[in-house]
Amino acid sequence: MSFHGADLEMIKRKYKIEKNLMDFSSNINPYFPENVEKISLESVKYLNDYPDIEYESIRNKISKHINYIYGCNLSKKNICVGNGATELIFLITRLEKKSRIGVVNPTFSEYERAVKISGNIYVDIKMNEGNSGFELDICEKIDDLDYLFICNPNNPDGKLRDITNIVKICEEKGTKLIVDETFIEFCEEDKKYTALNYDYKDIFVIRAVTKFYGLPGVRFGYVLSKNERYIQRMWDIKEPWSVNTFAEKIVCGILDDYNFAKNTKEFYFKERNYLLNNLHNINGIKVFDTDSAFLLLRLDDTLKNINSKKLKKIMILKYGIVIRDASSFDGLNDRYVRIAIKKRKDNKALICAISEIINGTMKEDT
Amino acid sequence: MSFHGADLEMIKRKYKIEKNLMDFSSNINPYFPENVEKISLESVKYLNDYPDIEYESIRNKISKHINYIYGCNLSKKNICVGNGATELIFLITRLEKKSRIGVVNPTFSEYERAVKISGNIYVDIKMNEGNSGFELDICEKIDDLDYLFICNPNNPDGKLRDITNIVKICEEKGTKLIVDETFIEFCEEDKKYTALNYDYKDIFVIRAVTKFYGLPGVRFGYVLSKNERYIQRMWDIKEPWSVNTFAEKIVCGILDDYNFAKNTKEFYFKERNYLLNNLHNINGIKVFDTDSAFLLLRLDDTLKNINSKKLKKIMILKYGIVIRDASSFDGLNDRYVRIAIKKRKDNKALICAISEIINGTMKEDT
Repeated sequence: MSFHGADLEMIKRKYKIEKNLMDFSSNINPYFPENVEKISLESVKYLNDYPDIEYESIRNKISKHINYIYGCNLSKKNICVGNGATELIFLITRLEKKSRIGVVNPTFSEYERAVKISGNIYVDIKMNEGNSGFELDICEKIDDLDYLFICNPNNPDGKLRDITNIVKICEEKGTKLIVDETFIEFCEEDKKYTALNYDYKDIFVIRAVTKFYGLPGVRFGYVLSKNERYIQRMWDIKEPWSVNTFAEKIVCGILDDYNFAKNTKEFYFKERNYLLNNLHNINGIKVFDTDSAFLLLRLDDTLKNINSKKLKKIMILKYGIVIRDASSFDGLNDRYVRIAIKKRKDNKALICAISEIINGTMKEDT
Repeated sequence: MSFHGADLEMIKRKYKIEKNLMDFSSNINPYFPENVEKISLESVKYLNDYPDIEYESIRNKISKHINYIYGCNLSKKNICVGNGATELIFLITRLEKKSRIGVVNPTFSEYERAVKISGNIYVDIKMNEGNSGFELDICEKIDDLDYLFICNPNNPDGKLRDITNIVKICEEKGTKLIVDETFIEFCEEDKKYTALNYDYKDIFVIRAVTKFYGLPGVRFGYVLSKNERYIQRMWDIKEPWSVNTFAEKIVCGILDDYNFAKNTKEFYFKERNYLLNNLHNINGIKVFDTDSAFLLLRLDDTLKNINSKKLKKIMILKYGIVIRDASSFDGLNDRYVRIAIKKRKDNKALICAISEIINGTMKEDT
């Protein structure tokens, strides 16, 4: 079993809590499109059949969607779909055995897990932490890799980075590049920084639908690659029917709700700035800059009576707020927590809670 | 991409057919429980959260269900859940690398595919075809296997077999046994022949929910084992959240509909006998005995102008009926087709169609 944010049910069991918790641990849009209820109901009449094993309609829909937004020229042959981004991460690592697969850390833990479970060789590539966050000066560390995983915008810091230099080196060295863009649609500059802009064919771009559209319960993700041969190989080894009929119909029915997408971007722009500005005003924590749906905080070393685990526990028990203890990210430690961006009312509650706890700790310390 | 029955959308694309086809290629209950629509609608409000990563409620529900029907004493620790039986087949093959894994053929093709993709050694164990069907006299062929897959009732012939001797040999040799009981609930004697009856701990029993309850679009299956350690290892390497919220809620809401289960068994008992009796009356085909939701036919060698592929094609184009060309099953050839048991009206249409085609061919031949 792997551990992540978003494990609310586990937390409620652990602390024997019955009431609803405010979830800042999962980076999910608190809104979802209005027509989901209608589509769910309509889907019922298709449940007596298997989903389309080739997922034609949904792949055609995705190619139109991506071509429209990013000006690409992709067809269904450039697309593989899966049960969330996670299935696709695991599937890519299964394309080879005993390959050297690098992962740019700190980042989402499932890359490392997938590489290790698949029997490939895991290569840890750490970003250094500078004053303005983690720095992508890793080019000289990319050596003899068959594959490289990079998350952009990165989880847990939410920063969208220019990966041009990395793409260049990967192309020179023949390293296949997997860019997890699961959270890129939340960013203002997604069009500028998406890996879809590069001509290098051996890039896999992983996308999710259900985070941006607020539907993690639906489970759906996809991979785009200009290299049709790789996509075909993914289909060759894939488990059939892993996307169920509800997911198929809902994704087809929401992808072209461009009004929802526009509102979501505006909502995140506003709330991201609100949260960043207010957290910056709290003494005792460092706030990392973010471009997406969540942000990373670091507790000052001077705060001796608190760490990420204790902060998380107090927030659950005293405030009913769940944040992500980020100490389990490779390269971070027990000073880091990750916070999702939510609705204004919730964001306010979060700011108050953190402020109270940190102030309280400062008083204890002195 | 793997090929199976049930690929109706692919067939419609291939033959440019727009109208609905009668599907005898997928072994699915044509009915599903009445409350599915209601549960689907209620599930929508949970979509904004991830499914429970440990799937506690559904595992507790399954243990109660299984203990009630089969008089077992299983807990959630004996249960792993997945995206259809297929995810679990693949997951089990990933528990080891370079193990010798036997598969009792002819059978469902995904066992072989999973063994090969996972990097294990595939050992083909063939049943011989006798006068009364395939014979499970394979005990002396089980040698030095780490794992053995057996499907019971078997796909494609639908026969439920007594596997006591195989269990005995596996226990003696320390071979772990995987019994795919995906279709056992359709059988009259499921309680007598389920592998849950054996004390040998190293058995994995694979079950589906969505075939018996007529919901293949939902995607859900589970594994039961008395060896909790193996179940824990499956969770350890599993991809998280592969069962989505709809599947979670629907399965929880239908498992104790024992009225539906009773009616389904009665329906299949009646239609199975109807179909068997009527097909037996058609000259030129051998009908294999079956206990479950489908049956196997063999075209007599004397019918020179037809084979399974041609029969399938004529049935699609002339009658709008899709059957399963079973020639791709390892151990079968182009004389075999598989047919699902459906509603009386459809079964009648199928019998007429096969009868007409076979009679026509006999006339051509003479």
